[in-house]
Amino acid sequence: MTIFVRRAGKQTWAIALTLCIFFAFQSVHAATDLPSWNNSSAREKIIAFVQKVTHEGDAGYVKPEARIAVFDNDGTLWTEQPAYVQLVYLIDRIKTLAPQHPEWKNQQPFKGILENDLHAVAATGNQGLMAIEHAADAGMTTDAYQANVLQWLATARDPRFKRPYTELVYQPMLELLDYLRANGFKTYIVSGGGADFMRPWTEKIYGIPPEQVIGSTDNIKFERNKQGQPQLIKQGAINFIDDGENKPVAIHRYIGRMPILAFGNSDGDLPMLQYVSSAPGTRLVLYLHHDDPDREYAYDRKSSFGKLDKGLDEAREKGWPVVSMKTDWKVVFPQ
Amino acid sequence: MTIFVRRAGKQTWAIALTLCIFFAFQSVHAATDLPSWNNSSAREKIIAFVQKVTHEGDAGYVKPEARIAVFDNDGTLWTEQPAYVQLVYLIDRIKTLAPQHPEWKNQQPFKGILENDLHAVAATGNQGLMAIEHAADAGMTTDAYQANVLQWLATARDPRFKRPYTELVYQPMLELLDYLRANGFKTYIVSGGGADFMRPWTEKIYGIPPEQVIGSTDNIKFERNKQGQPQLIKQGAINFIDDGENKPVAIHRYIGRMPILAFGNSDGDLPMLQYVSSAPGTRLVLYLHHDDPDREYAYDRKSSFGKLDKGLDEAREKGWPVVSMKTDWKVVFPQ
Repeated sequence: MTIFVRRAGKQTWAIALTLCIFFAFQSVHAATDLPSWNNSSAREKIIAFVQKVTHEGDAGYVKPEARIAVFDNDGTLWTEQPAYVQLVYLIDRIKTLAPQHPEWKNQQPFKGILENDLHAVAATGNQGLMAIEHAADAGMTTDAYQANVLQWLATARDPRFKRPYTELVYQPMLELLDYLRANGFKTYIVSGGGADFMRPWTEKIYGIPPEQVIGSTDNIKFERNKQGQPQLIKQGAINFIDDGENKPVAIHRYIGRMPILAFGNSDGDLPMLQYVSSAPGTRLVLYLHHDDPDREYAYDRKSSFGKLDKGLDEAREKGWPVVSMKTDWKVVFPQ
Repeated sequence: MTIFVRRAGKQTWAIALTLCIFFAFQSVHAATDLPSWNNSSAREKIIAFVQKVTHEGDAGYVKPEARIAVFDNDGTLWTEQPAYVQLVYLIDRIKTLAPQHPEWKNQQPFKGILENDLHAVAATGNQGLMAIEHAADAGMTTDAYQANVLQWLATARDPRFKRPYTELVYQPMLELLDYLRANGFKTYIVSGGGADFMRPWTEKIYGIPPEQVIGSTDNIKFERNKQGQPQLIKQGAINFIDDGENKPVAIHRYIGRMPILAFGNSDGDLPMLQYVSSAPGTRLVLYLHHDDPDREYAYDRKSSFGKLDKGLDEAREKGWPVVSMKTDWKVVFPQ
């Protein structure tokens, strides 16, 4: 590119403006790469969708403020096997607290934790998971809880990959998040995991700030400590489980407008995908299929965590892209 | 300003970048006016605060992503007398539905509505208000509800000012919202009013998008209509009343980080102001005092709507700016 500028004044401003626009265009263009994605039909559909909604004049054009994209977290942005990371965190914490709670030896899901029987724990479902979380957290300030999560993540390592859990995020999904944001999208997490568990680290790892992280919540109470300082105390009771049919409810409650893209990996994401795909206008909903036992895991219809059964059938029936981890991705985790 | 550009290449890019920065600086500077504010101590404190948090190198500097400002709505951004606007909307709707509900003649708060006895309605408090809202809305889709709100606002007029309610917003507060946003703030509403009631119009009127409007919520349910289309149905039951000690809880739950500025007008905002002002770092919390019976209303310690009693004492004790509508504002409503 060669531009010759010979005079000052209005012309300089016009050129400056042109260059600003050029810079902006360049940054959008450069981000379209999705370098860790193979040149598959899923990648093509994503790029075609983004080009459509960002191309002013196209019938499918969407104004930037309405470019909302929602992502499940467990199994969609990071690994959820052999158990949800939040559950691993809680197991560690429950084991630490167990000597003060002898009754847990005969009470699920605590019994399962103490006996290292994850199937028994998983059988108690989201309710069980949240019960554990709250047994572990009740009475903590929200600040202390979040500090505790960060401290644990700094030292905990996944037993198979020997890496911190925040490194077991999917490189192609990190690129997709970046690509969408470079094209004016606002990226949200809509997860069954605890909002307080995710928010301390999602900005650094995914570029998703706390106010765009929607998750399960517990009751918290405004109190004053002995010095009269206001603080928020976790009450040890479930307020909202952000899974299944609650995901569309949470989207309405927290965002208040219909996303145009939704990405999930389990039946717990199906109502969210149905909700987003049913709205009028240009929409894209996708499933990630875990079919890569060598580089990550292979599971779907019978898994305790992240079961994908009805969703897989509905995706095939409706033509939603099903991303194959094995064939669509060049790499799984960041190097 | 005169800039002479004689050669193309790297130098042109450097100048373009300089001009981009200059443009950005200009837009921030021009917005500092707050033209409808008299040159009072409250205005000075606001401007000094914003200069402090935006001045890189200042000990009180705050990064743009943490510049969160929260505003109450009723009585802080728009008028709440002689009754909350949402209550006026609900009164109209209840009167429309009343023939189908003969039991309402003997049941508060409905009795009060049908007899035009607003004091009796007000006496039932937030619980009563929400009971009315839900009697009016149960079974509606969220889309139908929001369309209904917009339709009502388009024709309803305030009896004293003979203007649409969305014109009874405070011009100096609109300027403050703009001023903060021009300085990199993200502006939020944290209101006792219904989120579904506010979100259809807050972007147009205040420049605050739906995802930054936090309010009271009702239970909603994901269902499918006869054609199998997903929809969200209002259930007629209160989920969360975003008032008093629930406001800090809502801030944590929806935003997930501590605001640096909070603005309210009633005792219902006091915990929010205490919460924000107690956090370490540069903070500003303010009260609006309604002391202008000629241009708007004068009320505080004994009002049914927007009572300001404990908050007024605490503001004076702690030195929080109390904005006088009468002496600090040149105009109240937009021309």
